[in-house]
Amino acid sequence: MSEYKVLDASDLEAISQYVPRERILWADEINEEYSHDELSADASYPEMVVKITSAEEASKVMRYANDKHIAVTPRGAGTGLVGSSVAVEKGIMIDTTLMNHFLELDEKNLTLTVEPGVLLMEIGQYVEEKGLFYPPDPGEKTATIGGNISTNAGGMRAVKYGVTRDYVRGLEVVLADGTIMEVGGKVVKNSSGYDLKDLIVGSEGTLCLVTKAILRLLPLPQKNVSLLIPFPTLAQAIGTVPLIVSSNVIPTAVEFMEREVIMDSEEYLGKKFPDNQADAYLLLKFDGASVEEISKYYDSVAQICLEQGALDLLIADTDERAEAIWKARGAFLEAIKGSTTMMDEVDVVVPRSCVNEFVEFVHDLRKEMGIRIKSFGHAGDGNLHVYILRDDMDDKKWAEMLGKAMERMYIKARELKGQVSGEHGIGLAKKPYLKESLPKESMKLMQGIKKAFDPNNILNPHKVCFD
Amino acid sequence: MSEYKVLDASDLEAISQYVPRERILWADEINEEYSHDELSADASYPEMVVKITSAEEASKVMRYANDKHIAVTPRGAGTGLVGSSVAVEKGIMIDTTLMNHFLELDEKNLTLTVEPGVLLMEIGQYVEEKGLFYPPDPGEKTATIGGNISTNAGGMRAVKYGVTRDYVRGLEVVLADGTIMEVGGKVVKNSSGYDLKDLIVGSEGTLCLVTKAILRLLPLPQKNVSLLIPFPTLAQAIGTVPLIVSSNVIPTAVEFMEREVIMDSEEYLGKKFPDNQADAYLLLKFDGASVEEISKYYDSVAQICLEQGALDLLIADTDERAEAIWKARGAFLEAIKGSTTMMDEVDVVVPRSCVNEFVEFVHDLRKEMGIRIKSFGHAGDGNLHVYILRDDMDDKKWAEMLGKAMERMYIKARELKGQVSGEHGIGLAKKPYLKESLPKESMKLMQGIKKAFDPNNILNPHKVCFD
Repeated sequence: MSEYKVLDASDLEAISQYVPRERILWADEINEEYSHDELSADASYPEMVVKITSAEEASKVMRYANDKHIAVTPRGAGTGLVGSSVAVEKGIMIDTTLMNHFLELDEKNLTLTVEPGVLLMEIGQYVEEKGLFYPPDPGEKTATIGGNISTNAGGMRAVKYGVTRDYVRGLEVVLADGTIMEVGGKVVKNSSGYDLKDLIVGSEGTLCLVTKAILRLLPLPQKNVSLLIPFPTLAQAIGTVPLIVSSNVIPTAVEFMEREVIMDSEEYLGKKFPDNQADAYLLLKFDGASVEEISKYYDSVAQICLEQGALDLLIADTDERAEAIWKARGAFLEAIKGSTTMMDEVDVVVPRSCVNEFVEFVHDLRKEMGIRIKSFGHAGDGNLHVYILRDDMDDKKWAEMLGKAMERMYIKARELKGQVSGEHGIGLAKKPYLKESLPKESMKLMQGIKKAFDPNNILNPHKVCFD
Repeated sequence: MSEYKVLDASDLEAISQYVPRERILWADEINEEYSHDELSADASYPEMVVKITSAEEASKVMRYANDKHIAVTPRGAGTGLVGSSVAVEKGIMIDTTLMNHFLELDEKNLTLTVEPGVLLMEIGQYVEEKGLFYPPDPGEKTATIGGNISTNAGGMRAVKYGVTRDYVRGLEVVLADGTIMEVGGKVVKNSSGYDLKDLIVGSEGTLCLVTKAILRLLPLPQKNVSLLIPFPTLAQAIGTVPLIVSSNVIPTAVEFMEREVIMDSEEYLGKKFPDNQADAYLLLKFDGASVEEISKYYDSVAQICLEQGALDLLIADTDERAEAIWKARGAFLEAIKGSTTMMDEVDVVVPRSCVNEFVEFVHDLRKEMGIRIKSFGHAGDGNLHVYILRDDMDDKKWAEMLGKAMERMYIKARELKGQVSGEHGIGLAKKPYLKESLPKESMKLMQGIKKAFDPNNILNPHKVCFD
């Protein structure tokens, strides 16, 4: 039985004093969407959803929950893949989507201050109109920035620009006891005590609730050029990546893709992919001040690819051509999802030099197990997305096959000195694998940190590394 | 009275079983150098210095110290400025300078694995010979990489490349109880539980001892060009910086310097600075694939500077010319130190747009107080280095003036939403100011984190945020 308080009418009445009743969903008012995220099989309804509009409201709700020992689950757009925003202990769900305001664009300090419910695609549009650039580029553009911060989302441009953590300068957060606290700020460097900011980024809502973020921007690169490079084999394609990354150019993105996933995408989008001559492709992007400058970079990369056996080089130097390719890439997750009844994913990250070994392992595994497994991913980062498809398996067989396939892949990732998650987080779905992957001392330290932030364990219980 | 055990002959005998006696310094064998760091006024001799050569040795020593409740102070080259490596509770000092081996250069994953005692200048030389690049560039090249990790050192190239934390991919550490643990690895992305790696970077030896580091490298930029730009006033020079940084080029370095500090440097080096027409200068560096490519960048920056009133533009596109300027810049700290009897420093970081206001405040303060205060710094990062000079003040006056000057500057930094330290850390010297600067909840969280890592508080006690 749960140790958490079950909500009743008195709680509804109390919370209604902090947040107007019309922004509270209670019992039957709670839509099915609130019971799950985008992919994870975990499902559970919260007893109450509170749509906050300020840190002050969040503070009052959290203080109440802390006093009464009610579980609190933060939720943005619900686009997570590992169950981080599922209310396993029911209780109160704090929905941040109404906190969706742009608060300040500071062009002198190149920072953008936003509320957590602003969507990733809104940030891109807002800053690019002003000639500025927010580099993190996860595939899911309808995610909230709060959600991106919560999982330390990565995305396509991480090869050159890094991940969400690298673009968060400061945060306003609400602690479990209701305290509103700031960490970091507009400063570029900081050696003033322990790095709480980076600890909070990626903590999946288990340490505090983010109510404001100061994001770092860059000047917008003037030009982009994408290169689609067909290879005779996937091994040749992926084997070329370390050579590219250690050459004297730094690509913005390095993705790998296979014919079978491209075909799913063609079907999903109802649109032909610009090339069909090969089973395996690298997709590269370069950015810079001008097409001439970029062309110098990709000339040397083209040379490397041809030396490694590339069949062709398709240069997409107009927005239209590039869009056709990247749109196909962007649809992979949905396209694979649409090709089966149900699926689950593995988001391992391995050293860049080990991607080939991991992908070959996955190919062998699906042959051995006789099930469909598809993959694509950020070859430049060593971050693979592997999808295990249910197709027509019954419940028992699915549970068995899924468990076996995942276990085998995580063991392989550990063998290659990889980590359980490159960018999707741990949530509920990856918890057992994290436990097997990290040294037990690391888990113990994380538990100590959790205790320092949330001594009553009300914030997003059972996630990441907690039983 | 100290709560820590005072060492006696039995401890020497015990530790000698873990580490050969010839690598232990005891009582009178301990050189005066071990009692202080490079700048801080704090001084205290450890009772024993242990020169470790492996994580296993460190583990045994730490386990013993933890059992007996002996304070342990890690020390690299002792080039710190804030007293982080001073053994305030005496006990055991762990000297890492013999752990100075390069363990692996992985060109496929662009990582370099080193022991903590390797010097910053050795890393630069080692990787640049191989066409690779370790971007962090603190002024003090004889610091160990362990020390750089411990304070999250910044340096000149942080404008474009970031700080030490951004180039640490993985660590092997020894915890207070002797456990040897790894965090991170060669992976580029990681969303697998709380970010212990970034928490340890910058923790000034209070959480654990670093015994191995996996550093991230980049391809070495082919060319550098430096620009020395004289301005009629410092305000004009610094006021130009946000315009440069938000334009469509990202300089590698943006430093500001004043005539009076340049003169100290000329005297210290016995060498004339390449220009003497102005009281204030910006020093910029750009890097890229070719001089032609870089020249496009600096042409637009030159335009901005001239519009803001720059008197001239001195382009240093040969190594010799650039070296004369950067050597002068590199000597500032030593030159100022040589110009007085004693000094202390302030290493605040403020938003880039507030540098001018802070520098003007410092100018007014020295007029008001009638003492010499000199400054220079990383204008592109908002990170100032301000030195308060003792000259001929007696002890009482010095203590009074130093305290007042520092207090006033930290209040001003807080007012501008700055932080106490940009890159030198907190140690002992900045502890009272950190306490005033951070919200008390932050301090409490840091104390909770410390407790999780080091429940008996043996590791570098009284530093950073602990009484």
